[in-house]
Amino acid sequence: MISSGGFRLEPWALRETQFDASPGRLAQTESIFALSNGHLGWRANLDEGEPFGMPGCYLNGVYEDRPLPWAERGYGYPESGETMLNVTNGKLIRLLVDDEPFDVRYGTLHSHERVLDFRAGTLWRRAEWTSPAGTTVRVTSRRLVSFTQRAVAAIEYQVEPLDAAARIVVQSELVANEQLPPPPGEPDPRLPPITEARLHPEENEARLGSGILIHRTVGSKLRVATATDHLWECPAGVRHDSESRRDLFRLTLAAMLAPGQRLRVVKFVAYGWSAIRSRSALHDQVEGAIAAALRSGWDGLLTEQRGYLDEFWRRAEVTLTGDAEIEHAIRFALFHVLQAAARAEGQAIPAKGLTGVGYDGHAFWDTEMFVLPVLTHTVPEAAAAALRWRHRTLPKARQRASVLGLAGAAFPWRTIEGRECSGYWPAGTAAFHVNAGIAAAVVRYTATTGDEAFAAGPGLDLLVHTARLWRSLGHYDATGQFRIDGVTGPDEYSAVADNNVYTNLMAQQNLRAAAAAAQRYRGRAGELGVGADEVAGWLAAAEAMLICYDDKLGVHPQAAGFTDHQEWDFAATGPDQYPLLLHFPYFDLYRKQVVKQADLVLAMQLFPDFFGDEQKARNFAYYEQRTVRDSSLSACSQAVIAAEVGQLDLAYDYLAETALLDLADLRHDTRNGLHIAALAGAWIALVEGLGGMRGTGGEPRFAPRLPAGLTRLAFGVMVAGRLLRVEAGAEAATYRLDGPGEPLQIRHHGRDVTVTAGEPRTLPIPPPPPWPAPGQPPGRDPARRRDAVERPG
Amino acid sequence: MISSGGFRLEPWALRETQFDASPGRLAQTESIFALSNGHLGWRANLDEGEPFGMPGCYLNGVYEDRPLPWAERGYGYPESGETMLNVTNGKLIRLLVDDEPFDVRYGTLHSHERVLDFRAGTLWRRAEWTSPAGTTVRVTSRRLVSFTQRAVAAIEYQVEPLDAAARIVVQSELVANEQLPPPPGEPDPRLPPITEARLHPEENEARLGSGILIHRTVGSKLRVATATDHLWECPAGVRHDSESRRDLFRLTLAAMLAPGQRLRVVKFVAYGWSAIRSRSALHDQVEGAIAAALRSGWDGLLTEQRGYLDEFWRRAEVTLTGDAEIEHAIRFALFHVLQAAARAEGQAIPAKGLTGVGYDGHAFWDTEMFVLPVLTHTVPEAAAAALRWRHRTLPKARQRASVLGLAGAAFPWRTIEGRECSGYWPAGTAAFHVNAGIAAAVVRYTATTGDEAFAAGPGLDLLVHTARLWRSLGHYDATGQFRIDGVTGPDEYSAVADNNVYTNLMAQQNLRAAAAAAQRYRGRAGELGVGADEVAGWLAAAEAMLICYDDKLGVHPQAAGFTDHQEWDFAATGPDQYPLLLHFPYFDLYRKQVVKQADLVLAMQLFPDFFGDEQKARNFAYYEQRTVRDSSLSACSQAVIAAEVGQLDLAYDYLAETALLDLADLRHDTRNGLHIAALAGAWIALVEGLGGMRGTGGEPRFAPRLPAGLTRLAFGVMVAGRLLRVEAGAEAATYRLDGPGEPLQIRHHGRDVTVTAGEPRTLPIPPPPPWPAPGQPPGRDPARRRDAVERPG
Repeated sequence: MISSGGFRLEPWALRETQFDASPGRLAQTESIFALSNGHLGWRANLDEGEPFGMPGCYLNGVYEDRPLPWAERGYGYPESGETMLNVTNGKLIRLLVDDEPFDVRYGTLHSHERVLDFRAGTLWRRAEWTSPAGTTVRVTSRRLVSFTQRAVAAIEYQVEPLDAAARIVVQSELVANEQLPPPPGEPDPRLPPITEARLHPEENEARLGSGILIHRTVGSKLRVATATDHLWECPAGVRHDSESRRDLFRLTLAAMLAPGQRLRVVKFVAYGWSAIRSRSALHDQVEGAIAAALRSGWDGLLTEQRGYLDEFWRRAEVTLTGDAEIEHAIRFALFHVLQAAARAEGQAIPAKGLTGVGYDGHAFWDTEMFVLPVLTHTVPEAAAAALRWRHRTLPKARQRASVLGLAGAAFPWRTIEGRECSGYWPAGTAAFHVNAGIAAAVVRYTATTGDEAFAAGPGLDLLVHTARLWRSLGHYDATGQFRIDGVTGPDEYSAVADNNVYTNLMAQQNLRAAAAAAQRYRGRAGELGVGADEVAGWLAAAEAMLICYDDKLGVHPQAAGFTDHQEWDFAATGPDQYPLLLHFPYFDLYRKQVVKQADLVLAMQLFPDFFGDEQKARNFAYYEQRTVRDSSLSACSQAVIAAEVGQLDLAYDYLAETALLDLADLRHDTRNGLHIAALAGAWIALVEGLGGMRGTGGEPRFAPRLPAGLTRLAFGVMVAGRLLRVEAGAEAATYRLDGPGEPLQIRHHGRDVTVTAGEPRTLPIPPPPPWPAPGQPPGRDPARRRDAVERPG
Repeated sequence: MISSGGFRLEPWALRETQFDASPGRLAQTESIFALSNGHLGWRANLDEGEPFGMPGCYLNGVYEDRPLPWAERGYGYPESGETMLNVTNGKLIRLLVDDEPFDVRYGTLHSHERVLDFRAGTLWRRAEWTSPAGTTVRVTSRRLVSFTQRAVAAIEYQVEPLDAAARIVVQSELVANEQLPPPPGEPDPRLPPITEARLHPEENEARLGSGILIHRTVGSKLRVATATDHLWECPAGVRHDSESRRDLFRLTLAAMLAPGQRLRVVKFVAYGWSAIRSRSALHDQVEGAIAAALRSGWDGLLTEQRGYLDEFWRRAEVTLTGDAEIEHAIRFALFHVLQAAARAEGQAIPAKGLTGVGYDGHAFWDTEMFVLPVLTHTVPEAAAAALRWRHRTLPKARQRASVLGLAGAAFPWRTIEGRECSGYWPAGTAAFHVNAGIAAAVVRYTATTGDEAFAAGPGLDLLVHTARLWRSLGHYDATGQFRIDGVTGPDEYSAVADNNVYTNLMAQQNLRAAAAAAQRYRGRAGELGVGADEVAGWLAAAEAMLICYDDKLGVHPQAAGFTDHQEWDFAATGPDQYPLLLHFPYFDLYRKQVVKQADLVLAMQLFPDFFGDEQKARNFAYYEQRTVRDSSLSACSQAVIAAEVGQLDLAYDYLAETALLDLADLRHDTRNGLHIAALAGAWIALVEGLGGMRGTGGEPRFAPRLPAGLTRLAFGVMVAGRLLRVEAGAEAATYRLDGPGEPLQIRHHGRDVTVTAGEPRTLPIPPPPPWPAPGQPPGRDPARRRDAVERPG
């Protein structure tokens, strides 16, 4: 058995065996053990509600308006933003033992265990506790948020006295407008979450063991309905009572249990919400969902859940022989990426999924650039749904572009419903690369799945409108080069610079992809007003795109002038001054050569053919020395390029850093929710890093290479509509097509290879290139080397 | 008689003969006729208080704290700002005529006149009015805000019935926490002024005709005391009564007057404020000030006032034969510049003086770069006082530099008390050039006056700490050039750019001036820790200063990369889209070649020797085509360089635009206060433009040249400790030294000339250089050509 970050790691589960009531740790574990299906999310708050780090029940798309205040207002600044709201708590099951509330902060907690099971899709818990008055009970619970019935969550709750008979009262509740604590720890530089009551009660009802609460958000006017029903069994007699108030439904079960007797309650909870549907429609909707859940029953829900996950793992399973800790962490990561996205259908994939209110519950460019590659190659239908969400917000993005004086669509930097919620335009509005990221995700999804309906419909819309944005954002200079000035690239320690290489390459790809799609779907393109001239204009701009290069240093500046800037004084920067943005003004960060996160390195990951091999090594060494990784979105790209330039140990370390980010709480903010994109990054670091996968999913390339200590890497990826299994050892790699079908063209370490169904191809792995090892800024080498993590024994 | 902007222009006075009660016009005239001595300011509200555009009584330095809200907070952002507060209104004299309030909105106003007298320093008013009930009275008042007794203002108020006997009641008041209206017109993009009660009452007292109110500001804890006393005379019997409440003192005078009988009241008002002095100390202070004013009496105050202004005009008189309108406007401008600064002693010179709460009452770089040149050459003691205010805030500026990670001092972009109040760092914190502007003002003041005590004391402190800032802000690049990256120059339509030419030249001057001062005052410099190494470091950085140049276009880009940026689409920009900042996002303005205000052109004005003659013409033509003048700080510099490159008509037009800015309300915001720096700019446009004056006051150069229509220009300037009178005609110019003393070296059109006391030198004026006339963006030529102004008849 191995352990890490205070958890015990099992191949397919995460187990906690110690209870730590400190609010920070509690909140971290509430994020880590959270359950979600992308539509509905429950933080892993204890059944009895307290103690908590931060209570949380979230519905994807349910937000509240929040005014955005400005010390000095400017044209085009958003007037108000959106913030994800804690909705009605359906998890609560309070317990009284001989009139004393079951609260682990009192009495004696003899044992505590929680298990997040990646294949069962459940959170299991067991506690043995003696009350201050001396009564000992065992509580066992299991919850799930259903992947197959997206409105439904359920809990099986059991309590039994261990030593002597006990009077047991169970109160199963729905609670709206829960009191929330201020967020623990250092205040986030952004706005704190809304903690006061924002749900206006509309209806409450209680019947025999079942009830419903309907509320409406005060500002955004979204109606939220929550219904519950219960089954219970007990050898002793049980008295029950159901009641409801404005913000409460409560079922009370009271029994006198002898040792060995057990009260078992199954609680079904269903959520529904809408901006437009009436109270009675929502009422019926959630009661219908409860009816379906009751029909499946607890065992049925468990079976469906396992079935869904079996299919997921069949495609997505990752094996990493030689490092059980990282293998486990990647499975943990994939499980949470799936949870964030599986049933988001029509809504965003927030940066924290539905595991916490960090970043206000907003989605960023992370979705398309980090999460969607993973989904596209493992659960492509979830990727399509995420892109359909973007497509749904296209009218708002077109309006935003118009406000900004641009053509096409300008998608928001951060949002829930599609409107721009950024409170700082140099790192928000100016980061136009989000638009090219959406286009790139369209390209990848289409190439991977061959989904023609999507490509000709929402895909084309997204490509055309983003291409129009780029064409209007850039201009030709006197020498005929196409420039994109005054924009912000991925690295948030630079802003509003000219000709960011990443942005320009992404825009080039965007323009070309739009042209290709418009030529392919001529009719639909014509409906969008795209003619031959416009397509020619896109291609010409793409062709003339200016990519900066510093001849003196022989590296690509991440934007014009970057390599002329002053070096950051790392020697004078103490370890407690990271993240730098909390200790230095933006102006100082922006004008110096210090990089928050992969920017030019990310460009090299995405455009492998644009950069020569030696150039990649030189660029990587240059940026490696200047990148502080104050963003969680950096380690995975650094892993990918480190692997490509032969720095396999470094790649391994960056893989470990991104994979363990939340499990080891490396950024001390997992309490606010998991870093979904960084978790996706663990898969990227593995598959694109150690596996060397490149390309957009049509004709994939691989270049697997393992660092010392790892003996075998295996993963499955959906490519060109097929499931391809890749397995690499120290000397050779094997490619297998899953199921029948046409042969598939791939590349292995630069060599064209045809893989035929039923005929695995095994190919030798060449030695890594000989470039010297680059250094990092002092103290900014990968986290794994610094933070003491218990290693596999 | 000529008129302009609805006023009648007399050589030494501005006269209003029509009353316009529209709130916008009323507020404009309240600014234009405002009285101030730099310490105390009274807007020209009507004696009876209503109607008003915006009531206003201001004490320089009395501000209230205001929180600065942030949608997204960042390191180093100010938590709160400062805003100038309307203090106790001492102007109020209400009148009842047969029980009807004298209010020009009712009854019939037969005549209305107001005269601002630039030599008497008074605001005179006369109104003849018939009440709704048919009683006719004449009201005559005269006010002054004393230049000689800075705490004191006074009003002579007379009322007489014209047709029949009338029952007259005069109520002379002090009112604190006046109700303020929301500001008229379109909301300022910045925060609105505070309109609710912010003065906490501490004391009130009434005696026979005299009274006192003491309050304390709620947030900033500044104590404000206002005292008043009255003299009155009347042939009829007068009943009087004095009373006070928390926010009110009131003297009531009641009389029955026959036609021809007149009630005359003289009201003395004294203000005092302090952050540290006790209530009783302030009480005594303002009563002492009243005692001194009573001792002078009304006539004495008038005499002192005229004496002060006679001495000012003796030095500062400007004559412009051929254009009485502009001659008048420049005298108006000089009068208000004097009013803003004369007795500011220890406090800032706000952008609006004490004429309104625009810009929150903050001082900006305008003070040193526009206002102080005028003061230095006309009222040098006021320039010294303004620099002593900066010096007093040096500890705050050093602390700010430290917060920003810089050495030396970083003076605030906008402030009252010295702390940074900017709510938008790219146009605030990043505009470091304010520091070099302070240094330049020190250099000019010292060279002009030879004030050794100042130079060795506050002057040296300011130069050393600003030089340290530049040395730490810039860095040497790989080629050994000294770069200043990521800063904002004067043009606010660009931000956070590298190597702004103006900034780098100003920094170079700053570094060299600090080195020279440190070498001259070695002992004092040593106390500041300045050694030979540090001085050598400053000189080396100055020597290696990078100044960008665009070889392809043959012009100086205002900052690196500027000339590569996209051109602004002026053809697609409608006249109603100016100022651009209210209609386009910053990101779009920043990345295009559109200039809000003189930047590179200002650099050419200040560093005449750095740019060759042809280069100046080429640069001017380039920027002229791209400058929209959305700032009031631009026209004067454009006038100066237009004159230098021989565009005399254009220079004349820009002179007119800046001179008439407030009189003609060209920016539609004079209601919020006068544009003191633009008014100073009228003098600059005249003296540095048509007069061609350059240099920092030690060995001045002149190059006078008059446009067609002007036959004579005459002005006096303090230079090298002397008063020099310059007089230019079409063919020749004459230089005269005022009073005895050593001969003075000057230059006339590039020729060295010695001027000896008592021996005027007359020299021929060469023809202007032959450069072609540059164009402006469509519709952005100087305002005078567009706005119909009644021209001299």
